[in-house]
Amino acid sequence: MLQNDLLLRTLKGETTERTPVWMMRQAGRYLPEYIVLRKKYGFFERCQTPELACEITLQPVNIVGVDAAILFSDILVVPQAMGLEVELIESKGPNLPNPIKTVSDLIRVRVPDVNETLGYVFDAIKLIKQELNGRVPLIGFAGAPWTILCYMVQGKGSKTFDEAKAFCYMQPQLAHQLLQMITDTTIAYLKGQVAAGADTIQIFDSWGGLLSPDDFEDISLQYIRQIVNALKDEVPTIIFAKGAWHSLEAMAATGAAGLGIDWCIHPQMARKFAGNNVTLQGNFDPAKLLSPIPVIKKEVKNMLQAFGPGRHVANLGHGILPNVPVDHAKAFVDTVKEESTKLYAQQ
Amino acid sequence: MLQNDLLLRTLKGETTERTPVWMMRQAGRYLPEYIVLRKKYGFFERCQTPELACEITLQPVNIVGVDAAILFSDILVVPQAMGLEVELIESKGPNLPNPIKTVSDLIRVRVPDVNETLGYVFDAIKLIKQELNGRVPLIGFAGAPWTILCYMVQGKGSKTFDEAKAFCYMQPQLAHQLLQMITDTTIAYLKGQVAAGADTIQIFDSWGGLLSPDDFEDISLQYIRQIVNALKDEVPTIIFAKGAWHSLEAMAATGAAGLGIDWCIHPQMARKFAGNNVTLQGNFDPAKLLSPIPVIKKEVKNMLQAFGPGRHVANLGHGILPNVPVDHAKAFVDTVKEESTKLYAQQ
Repeated sequence: MLQNDLLLRTLKGETTERTPVWMMRQAGRYLPEYIVLRKKYGFFERCQTPELACEITLQPVNIVGVDAAILFSDILVVPQAMGLEVELIESKGPNLPNPIKTVSDLIRVRVPDVNETLGYVFDAIKLIKQELNGRVPLIGFAGAPWTILCYMVQGKGSKTFDEAKAFCYMQPQLAHQLLQMITDTTIAYLKGQVAAGADTIQIFDSWGGLLSPDDFEDISLQYIRQIVNALKDEVPTIIFAKGAWHSLEAMAATGAAGLGIDWCIHPQMARKFAGNNVTLQGNFDPAKLLSPIPVIKKEVKNMLQAFGPGRHVANLGHGILPNVPVDHAKAFVDTVKEESTKLYAQQ
Repeated sequence: MLQNDLLLRTLKGETTERTPVWMMRQAGRYLPEYIVLRKKYGFFERCQTPELACEITLQPVNIVGVDAAILFSDILVVPQAMGLEVELIESKGPNLPNPIKTVSDLIRVRVPDVNETLGYVFDAIKLIKQELNGRVPLIGFAGAPWTILCYMVQGKGSKTFDEAKAFCYMQPQLAHQLLQMITDTTIAYLKGQVAAGADTIQIFDSWGGLLSPDDFEDISLQYIRQIVNALKDEVPTIIFAKGAWHSLEAMAATGAAGLGIDWCIHPQMARKFAGNNVTLQGNFDPAKLLSPIPVIKKEVKNMLQAFGPGRHVANLGHGILPNVPVDHAKAFVDTVKEESTKLYAQQ
């Protein structure tokens, strides 16, 4: 049914004719067409209005030519659905004015009926699938429970999320109770995304890399594993735990189809850690998209050769920066398509 | 001459009776005695007045019982000495109101006479050495050239230092010219610190972990290597490139005596990467000092066992947090002393 199913086939480990490519935050501020909508509508208005979410989701498919669409939304819709107030002031980042600090705060949090609280996401997905009309697959997503806890406890962005970590170290029982509630909500939410039409799911653990290897297993991965288990018979899942290179082997063992890596690990070392039964996704340095186009082309070629043909989804190692010229993003996407086609033909 | 030379002997790979211990940012805001001075004097006043720098440097030696003193100063005294205006508003972090953006900005930067511009640091070191009176060694320090460039270009703290990275990718020749100027200044500065009495030098590459392995070599390590080379016949040097686990082997090959690691790598894996001819320093998660004291004791014991006896300097994986109770810092230090003594006796 899909005209371009390169992403799905690559996630399943099937042979393809080239490397599929998409970019984290591909529907975002580097696109002038997005800026127009951003000026007219508030962040949650854009997320909660299926027509707007659909239009934004499709922009990079139409403008940049990526091989997959990713739902326009935010990981913080989950704590919002669980009962916490969430403000997204785009110049300042997220703000949760009443974060979770002690056991008495749990009274304000629930595992919600996702159809009631997040139905607008499922509606957006249905509309996107209709508008995509089989051109490329649609990626659904959610934050990993640890990353969601970071915001629920710290209340805002942070370099180190010390308060969230201290919460886990000082009140471990409470932390695990909250992590399980987030996990249960996330599983229902992602099952709803799949039922609505998402072809694959990415779990973003943006702050997984702040934890030691042991804590990553205890506080993050055991909950991600539950999510992957709940979904793996339905769609392929991708885990992107930024910076958690030390647990690539453990993440591969969850049964996830794909693992995202950032630019701070060499693709060959990531492959060594992750083994051969998982697809790797990444890992172009987003800041390098600011380089002149000939440098981008050269570096993309190096990246493709470092991963080698097969079991690779080309992507950035983190979200695209707002100040990247659209031509540079296009150069990234086009070079992946051209150079990987050559690389695969040489096999 | 030193009564406690555990740190220096451990850096040289000599046999000792236990693991030495100190903490990054040990002279800092978690100490009420420091807060008193912080309220009375501005940041640069504290750095530039040898009596104040001396008093602050000695506080953790007297109060917490660490095995080494580290000079109270800031890495940003170097860009200041090179001609840039640097403001340190402690609630807001560093600010350089006129950062380097283009080649024409280089006119405002020079490789200074360090005796003229940084003589106050050397005076502080002389006074500290006198006051320490051989109790413990004194660690001098500077920022790695890449980390200094981050501030000189970005102008303030950042999670990703995208502008600094873009500067390097878009104007590589200019970036390397600036990095060499910082390197030349840093070498003269650190030689001055050693001449004044510093027993060992730590190079802080706080933002080394933001670079890919290849960029780390090109933008950071080649300059760190020059600094290590310039110092290694005089004192042992420690490189702490936070997050740059991928280059531990290359850093060990510089001839540095010690390599700092953070808590996001298991000590045994760090040892595997770094080889056996270098001392490892670290790697307790600073947020874990907020745990209850019995948890701290258990986790310190686990850390010591993971490193094994010898060639290990106990430290945090990053600076101590301002909200750590002094008792918890003491528990960390005391537990290293007690438990490592037992561990070494079992050998």
